[in-house]
Amino acid sequence: MTDPALPRLEFWYDFASTYSYPASMRVEELAARSGVEISWQPFLLGSIFAEQNWLGSPFNIYPRKGRYMWRDMERICEKMKLPLRKPDPFPQNSLLAARVTLTLPEHQRGKFTRLVYAAEFGEGKVISNETMLGGFLAKMKLEPPKFLTLAITPEIKQQLKHNSERANALGLIGAPSFVTRSGEVFWGNDRLEDALEWALRE
Amino acid sequence: MTDPALPRLEFWYDFASTYSYPASMRVEELAARSGVEISWQPFLLGSIFAEQNWLGSPFNIYPRKGRYMWRDMERICEKMKLPLRKPDPFPQNSLLAARVTLTLPEHQRGKFTRLVYAAEFGEGKVISNETMLGGFLAKMKLEPPKFLTLAITPEIKQQLKHNSERANALGLIGAPSFVTRSGEVFWGNDRLEDALEWALRE
Repeated sequence: MTDPALPRLEFWYDFASTYSYPASMRVEELAARSGVEISWQPFLLGSIFAEQNWLGSPFNIYPRKGRYMWRDMERICEKMKLPLRKPDPFPQNSLLAARVTLTLPEHQRGKFTRLVYAAEFGEGKVISNETMLGGFLAKMKLEPPKFLTLAITPEIKQQLKHNSERANALGLIGAPSFVTRSGEVFWGNDRLEDALEWALRE
Repeated sequence: MTDPALPRLEFWYDFASTYSYPASMRVEELAARSGVEISWQPFLLGSIFAEQNWLGSPFNIYPRKGRYMWRDMERICEKMKLPLRKPDPFPQNSLLAARVTLTLPEHQRGKFTRLVYAAEFGEGKVISNETMLGGFLAKMKLEPPKFLTLAITPEIKQQLKHNSERANALGLIGAPSFVTRSGEVFWGNDRLEDALEWALRE
């Protein structure tokens, strides 16, 4: 699936992350235009936050940071003509969505990921349950029971754990992050262009 | 000095802040090109950090964040062809530099600010003492004793205190920040272009 001759960028995201929403909507198109292959890497920010002694989202722990982030998101989404609605509760539990993503072949992860983010931050919907996630699979003409069952097998649980450990080992501090073949890390939706440029130079 | 007809942007910075270094080097030229007037607003991040219960720089409290920031700064400075050297200690005490800036008329603050940042993050120098700051004033053909004496008068001390309180009231969460006439806040060197665009629309 991965062409070793193509420039490649890993897109690391947590479904609970706000800035990963606009990033997920533009990463594939921008990468295709640059001739860069995207690898979708869902992970859980939890272990990274725990290491910084944050028990929960920094946007809730530091209300001032949270207020700024939502205003900044409003501006970003307005510019991209994306709807924005805060889900309740925020952040959403992203565990099952991440696991379901990992059951899909690489070329279907982008579409699934965008469906989840559009419902979560475009419509403010809860994305943690099987009904919701099954609906996205059905929209993609995939059998919900098959992938929802796969999602809770030990193999997939282990894959997500492994992904989160790798995120930690890479030194990620938030989502979205972009990682090049050589391990160069770019953090934030606003660093996507720089990350693509770097991937092309490697 | 301020022309009410001109679009205007406040540039809020702390001399201890790393990302304010590249921002200070590009803000005046970019603003002039857009026809936006810049107002230089030195302040102290201390009171904002204290409110978040950070006792010191978040880049020291969270080493992983610090490592990422220095790598990110390397990339930014390389792109802008700016030298980069970490001062010791980091962060530098920025109190006197901020006070001296406030003794200067608006049109001289940009040049003084850039001299301080260039020494601090371009050469890794200590910027907290009178000798160093007096040297920058001399380079600008300003009398060091006059401005260094002014800098520690109750009026200037009060001005800096007032600036830091206003930064808090504006909801700033870091430096650099850019604030438009209507109070729209943009945080980060990477938001300068967006802030200028906003200022032009107001």
